[in-house]
Amino acid sequence: MSDLSEKIASANAEAFGRLRSANPVWVDVQLAIDCLPGMTRETVLHAGPPIAWVDMCGPQKMGVVQAVLHEGLATDEAEAEARILAGEITVAPCHDYNATGGMAGITSASAPIAVVRDEVNGVTGHSQLFQGPASGLQDRDLYNQEARKRWTWLTEVLGPVLGAAVRHTGGIPVKPMIGRALQMGDECHNRNSGGSALLLTQLMLPLCETCDDPDLLQQALAYLIENEQFSLVLSMAAGKAMAEAMKGVEHSTIVTTLCRNGVNFGIKVSGLGEQWFTAPANRIEGLYFSSEYSDADAVPDIGDSAIMETVGLGGHAQAAAPVLQQFVGGSFARACGLMRDMGEICQGELTEFKVPNMDFAGVPAGIDIRKVVKTQITPVIDTAIAHRKGGVIGAGQTRAPLAAFEQALRAFGAAYAGPRP
Amino acid sequence: MSDLSEKIASANAEAFGRLRSANPVWVDVQLAIDCLPGMTRETVLHAGPPIAWVDMCGPQKMGVVQAVLHEGLATDEAEAEARILAGEITVAPCHDYNATGGMAGITSASAPIAVVRDEVNGVTGHSQLFQGPASGLQDRDLYNQEARKRWTWLTEVLGPVLGAAVRHTGGIPVKPMIGRALQMGDECHNRNSGGSALLLTQLMLPLCETCDDPDLLQQALAYLIENEQFSLVLSMAAGKAMAEAMKGVEHSTIVTTLCRNGVNFGIKVSGLGEQWFTAPANRIEGLYFSSEYSDADAVPDIGDSAIMETVGLGGHAQAAAPVLQQFVGGSFARACGLMRDMGEICQGELTEFKVPNMDFAGVPAGIDIRKVVKTQITPVIDTAIAHRKGGVIGAGQTRAPLAAFEQALRAFGAAYAGPRP
Repeated sequence: MSDLSEKIASANAEAFGRLRSANPVWVDVQLAIDCLPGMTRETVLHAGPPIAWVDMCGPQKMGVVQAVLHEGLATDEAEAEARILAGEITVAPCHDYNATGGMAGITSASAPIAVVRDEVNGVTGHSQLFQGPASGLQDRDLYNQEARKRWTWLTEVLGPVLGAAVRHTGGIPVKPMIGRALQMGDECHNRNSGGSALLLTQLMLPLCETCDDPDLLQQALAYLIENEQFSLVLSMAAGKAMAEAMKGVEHSTIVTTLCRNGVNFGIKVSGLGEQWFTAPANRIEGLYFSSEYSDADAVPDIGDSAIMETVGLGGHAQAAAPVLQQFVGGSFARACGLMRDMGEICQGELTEFKVPNMDFAGVPAGIDIRKVVKTQITPVIDTAIAHRKGGVIGAGQTRAPLAAFEQALRAFGAAYAGPRP
Repeated sequence: MSDLSEKIASANAEAFGRLRSANPVWVDVQLAIDCLPGMTRETVLHAGPPIAWVDMCGPQKMGVVQAVLHEGLATDEAEAEARILAGEITVAPCHDYNATGGMAGITSASAPIAVVRDEVNGVTGHSQLFQGPASGLQDRDLYNQEARKRWTWLTEVLGPVLGAAVRHTGGIPVKPMIGRALQMGDECHNRNSGGSALLLTQLMLPLCETCDDPDLLQQALAYLIENEQFSLVLSMAAGKAMAEAMKGVEHSTIVTTLCRNGVNFGIKVSGLGEQWFTAPANRIEGLYFSSEYSDADAVPDIGDSAIMETVGLGGHAQAAAPVLQQFVGGSFARACGLMRDMGEICQGELTEFKVPNMDFAGVPAGIDIRKVVKTQITPVIDTAIAHRKGGVIGAGQTRAPLAAFEQALRAFGAAYAGPRP
């Protein structure tokens, strides 16, 4: 093994060790302005790698404008757009603020945020609570009106009620929840029914004990009962904390970010710090929730939820959730085969996250850009499909684009290997 | 096909059709005296086929005495035993009172009972709520004291609180709960985490809406949160309703009861009505929850919970719950293999109960005594292990004894085929 190979091997073992040792604990729900480092009242965060507002896909572009209005930074859409174009509003990726955002990922100062702390590695991950109304509202104005109503409710009701209950528990460790959810048919990206039920079970009594207002309690409970994807919020915040822990290990070729903004797919690599490598986001192969939708309605791959694949879940754990194969016309054997493929491009198995359906094999985690480029096998992402006018209209699978990994490997070579003799 | 074969084929199709069409709905929780047909204040029911009190295994024998004391029918154990021996107490199988009882199955007049009604077939199934303290109490007197405390609490608190909530819902259909639980890692006999979480989710708001006393509400919620096997109560009551629907089809060779009393395993067959066929119960291959226990502590196979295998769940659906293979040193492939074996002895697949891990195959249901005897493949039963002094101390798998099916087939021949020429 060459000197560089040895350094990489050791660096990757270090990064993977941090993923293993991480103990992310859900400790609070706070407003973005109060918990995200660097957040300002004039900042609007979005999913995926950096992108200028004018270049965004429909729902994200629209979401930024609505957030400016929601925060009282403009009185109408024209003024909001003018302020954005004048650079008076900071528009930036959630990922660069220690956060993640599902789908369009719109996160503004007053957004309630799940705070997940890992004391082992001394890092914190965040995720906005899910925001939007989902599908069925493709009238643009109606959609935006409903979205802003939901944001207000999340800030005023769900955030405070949940926050009090979570603080009352003294913190809810997220890895055990994920581990048990994998035994309950979840892969913790597109399917979260088990995890959400587990969280609800854990939160029920603390909610009753900390919320004095029966109406607010009932509203919060009803939301948690109906929202079977709720645990993804915590899985994402925990995933972000775990990925942060892996960051900045010199010589490491392990991926620390996978995310998409509906236009581009972006990755970061441990040994290359905060540098982005991007390529056009792929379309999603899947099913629409209603026959009224078709590929023409869908934006390409969008959202920071691919943080789950970054830490070995979602598409990397798909045999745990064979139900999802229905979305891609697949089979249990296909799911197992794809997981074995992911093993080819990963540093190792995360044995805390076992897949009972594969005789308790750990999920393949720690994507190595060298292995991706060498094998041409790209990460499989389980993901929802967004409508170009807003809302979630389907679900399926896609692949990360190879070009982003090729770019990253070239940059890695330039940074560490120097010019070839 | 002979005339008899044709009649059997048509009868079995009829019995299986009733299993398919059944729509068991959890409608209420009532006291045994108020809902079980034929129940009296001087009756104590037990799990498994009929057995004289003196011949019972330890925990069941002890349980009958405690029930007599609990119901105020005697003032001390000596008097209770004397009354039982004098025939002043009716001791009979739950199954003959339209009910099922987990483990020892002790069910007396004041026991709260889950009532599950199937309007399609016009039948009702019942199950006692689970009773006992579990393991760790093998001091006989202490165990009995705790058991009777728990019975009182179930009658006074859980039964009324749950009953009000369930009536408030207008009824909870059980088949959809089971169908979803199979997607959440349950096989609905030894593993019920998904089903219990689903029921809790469905009951939470109705419980809050119908229970005015915060202390009682909290007690009931805490019990449901901690008791991950709770949904088995409903699955068993629904299983009993489904099995009842299959009963009494002339010429049918389909099994309508599988149950055990810790001494004998008993079966009934559709075309042979209420006649019992028994053989010694097998021991259970499995793991003990603590290293302090060994085979010497365990009674043989006990409980009416094999009603789940009777309708195609539990051991018949084990690939849905690969987690349980840990109890038998098995593998996912083993679980799938055993399910395929069960297909060899069953009438068909119950497509409402799909196993995603086997590409959505329906569970094999409707055990045919002819096929069991011909193939010598006996039903696999997932089951818990009872301590001979009371309490659940482990879990594993066992097989139904072939001899019971051979007896039943001989009786079927005598009843329908007449003497051979």
